[in-house]
Amino acid sequence: MDQVPHTPAIVVDEPIVDANIAAMATFAADHNLALRPHAKTHKIAAIGHKQLAAGSQGLAVATVGEALYFFEHGITDLFLSYPLWATANDAESLSRLATEAVLAVGTDSVAAVHQLADVTRQHPGVELMIELNSGHNRSGVLPEHVVPIAEAIRDRNMVLRGLFTFPGHSYAPGEQTTAAADEARTLKTAERYLHEAGFDVPVLSGGSSPTAKATAADGAGEIRPGVYVFGDAQQYELGRIDVEDIALTVVTTVVSRHEAQDGVPARIIVDAGSKILAADRAPWATGHGRVLGHPDARITALSEHHGTISWDSDELPDIGTRLQLIPNHVCVAVNLVDEVYVTNGERITKTWQVGARGLNT
Amino acid sequence: MDQVPHTPAIVVDEPIVDANIAAMATFAADHNLALRPHAKTHKIAAIGHKQLAAGSQGLAVATVGEALYFFEHGITDLFLSYPLWATANDAESLSRLATEAVLAVGTDSVAAVHQLADVTRQHPGVELMIELNSGHNRSGVLPEHVVPIAEAIRDRNMVLRGLFTFPGHSYAPGEQTTAAADEARTLKTAERYLHEAGFDVPVLSGGSSPTAKATAADGAGEIRPGVYVFGDAQQYELGRIDVEDIALTVVTTVVSRHEAQDGVPARIIVDAGSKILAADRAPWATGHGRVLGHPDARITALSEHHGTISWDSDELPDIGTRLQLIPNHVCVAVNLVDEVYVTNGERITKTWQVGARGLNT
Repeated sequence: MDQVPHTPAIVVDEPIVDANIAAMATFAADHNLALRPHAKTHKIAAIGHKQLAAGSQGLAVATVGEALYFFEHGITDLFLSYPLWATANDAESLSRLATEAVLAVGTDSVAAVHQLADVTRQHPGVELMIELNSGHNRSGVLPEHVVPIAEAIRDRNMVLRGLFTFPGHSYAPGEQTTAAADEARTLKTAERYLHEAGFDVPVLSGGSSPTAKATAADGAGEIRPGVYVFGDAQQYELGRIDVEDIALTVVTTVVSRHEAQDGVPARIIVDAGSKILAADRAPWATGHGRVLGHPDARITALSEHHGTISWDSDELPDIGTRLQLIPNHVCVAVNLVDEVYVTNGERITKTWQVGARGLNT
Repeated sequence: MDQVPHTPAIVVDEPIVDANIAAMATFAADHNLALRPHAKTHKIAAIGHKQLAAGSQGLAVATVGEALYFFEHGITDLFLSYPLWATANDAESLSRLATEAVLAVGTDSVAAVHQLADVTRQHPGVELMIELNSGHNRSGVLPEHVVPIAEAIRDRNMVLRGLFTFPGHSYAPGEQTTAAADEARTLKTAERYLHEAGFDVPVLSGGSSPTAKATAADGAGEIRPGVYVFGDAQQYELGRIDVEDIALTVVTTVVSRHEAQDGVPARIIVDAGSKILAADRAPWATGHGRVLGHPDARITALSEHHGTISWDSDELPDIGTRLQLIPNHVCVAVNLVDEVYVTNGERITKTWQVGARGLNT
C-alpha cells in the first residue's frame, strides 16, 4: 500500500470484487432468483456495470439522485427501494427516469401513492413496489395492511409491480435464519392477501447480504444484496464471509505510538477516524472495524481523524507504518471519499470516482 | 423549512452562528485568551472569515488539505493541530504554506520531528507544537516525555512554538471541570519541564468546546473550540449550551408512519439517516440526535437513509411532514454534504459550499 500517495485512503481489490460479484450471480442463477444488487453500497458506475455484466437485470438504489447517476451512466433498470415521499421538485427527474428507463419506486402508504401519482401525473412508467415490515420495524407495513395501498395504486391507474422487504434484523449474530424465515413468510402472506383481493403480484423482492442465501429456499423471487460486493467487518464478525472475501480497506498511517503505562494499555493512533471509517458500531461488534492481518488488534475508539488501536505491547508498529483497516459498515465508508484506489491485488491500476457520493436526495 | 427543495438537507441559521462566534470571541477577549477556532467543524471559508473578523488570529485545522483550502480562501495563520506523519507527497503543500502563510504543525514523537524536518528540508516557516496527553489517552505524550521531542526540534534547527492538548475526556457528563483541570495541569507541568531544560514555550494551547470556559482560569493561553459555532445534540445533552444556541439542523421528511402495534411503540421514519446525521452516539446520548421543538421524541435507530423516531402515539406527524433534527456530532454531519442552506432565521438567503468536505488528507 506504499503506492497510495496520502493516507487515509480507500483501496479496492478488483479481483476480489469480481469474485464476489461472480459468486452471488452464480448463486442467484442456480436458485432461479433475480439479482438486483443495491448500489448504495458502492455508488460507482463501473461496479454497477460489472454487476449487470454478471447477469443482474438492474440495480436497487436509495435516492432519486442515485437513480439519476446510474441512469446517466447507462444503467436503465432501477428500483428506488425506499418509501419515497415525492415532491414537485422531483417531478422532472422521475418523469425522465420513467420515460427513458425502467423505474420502480417503493411505497408503504396510501398517502405516498397519491402524492407520487400527483407529482408524476400518474406516469405509466412509474411502477410501484409496496414495502413490508418483516420484523425490522423500520418502514414497511404489515401484510394485513397491504390491500388498501394496492387499491390506491389501482385507483390512480398506476402499476403494482410487487412487494419488497428488508430483513434488517438479520444484522445480529444468529439471526440470519430467523430473519430469512420472517422475510419469506411476510412476503408470502402479503402476496396471498393481494391475490385474494384480485391483484397480480409479479415480483417478490427481499434479501439483505446476510440473508440472501438463506432467503433463496423460499419466498423472494428477487434479492437485493448490497454489501457482498466489498464485504466489511460486520459481515465478517457475523460469520457471513471470510476475511479473504473483503475487497475494500482503508489504508492508514500510524501517527502516534504509546507503550502501556499507568494502567493504560499499549496503543497506536492511526490517521483513519470517523471521517473515513464512519462511526457505525453494532452492539456486538468487537470495535470500530478490524485491522487486516492483525486479528488480535482492536480499534477501541474513533474520533474524526484518529483511530485508537490496542495492540500487543511487544509488537507495537513504528510511527509511519501503514496498515489496512476493514470498516465496520462499508456503505457509509465509501460515501466519505470522492474516489477509491483500485488494485489488481498487487499494485494500483486506476481510480474509480464514487460518482453517487453524497447524493442523499 | 418548506423552501428547502429536497430533503434531507442541512440548514444553518446565520444569526445564531454570528451570535455564537461573538460570544466566544468576547469570552476569550475578557479572559485574555487567544482564540483559534477549529475549522474541521464547519469546513466553510465564509465561517472562517467570520471567526477572524471577530478577533481570532487564525484557525486550527486537522489535515494538510484543510489547511490548503483555508489558505486558498485567504486565511493565512493555520495550526495543523494533529501529529502529522509527513511524507514526500506533502512536501510541496507544506512548503507553500510555510512560505506564504504562518504555519504550525503538531507532533508527539522524535521520529515525526525528523520526518517533518526531512520532508520540509527544515523549512524555517514550519513551527512545531508538541502534543500532550492530558487524560484522553489518544495521541500526545505525557509531560515527562516532552523534553526529547523539544531537543529533536532544536537539533534540526526548527522552531518550537509551544504545547497543545485536547481534553477529549471532557465529552462526558460531569467531566468538564475535571478535564479542564487535567488540561491545565498537564500544560503547566510540561511547560515547567521545558523551562528547566532551557526551552522557551511561547504558546500553550488547549480547550475543547466543553472545556473552553473552564480552561480559562488557568493553563492555556490559546483555546481551540470547534463545535461552539453550530452547537449539536452532544453539547446540548452535556448541558453546555441551550437549544436556542443550536445553529445547524438537518431538515427531513416523514416518509413512513406507524401506530403502536404488537408491543412495538408508535414510530415515524424520516429520510435522514447515517449518511447525513452520521452514526456518532456517545454511551450517555438519549438517541441518534434530537428533534427540534419535540423534546420528548427519541431517534432510536438510524440506517443509511432511515431515521426511526419514537413519538407519542396520539400526536404522530403525517407522512410528508418536515422536521428539523439536531445531529449528535455536528462536525461529521457537515462533512456529509457539499453545501448547506443558510437562513436569516426566517427564510433561505443563500448557500455555503462545504469547501473542505472530504479533505481527509
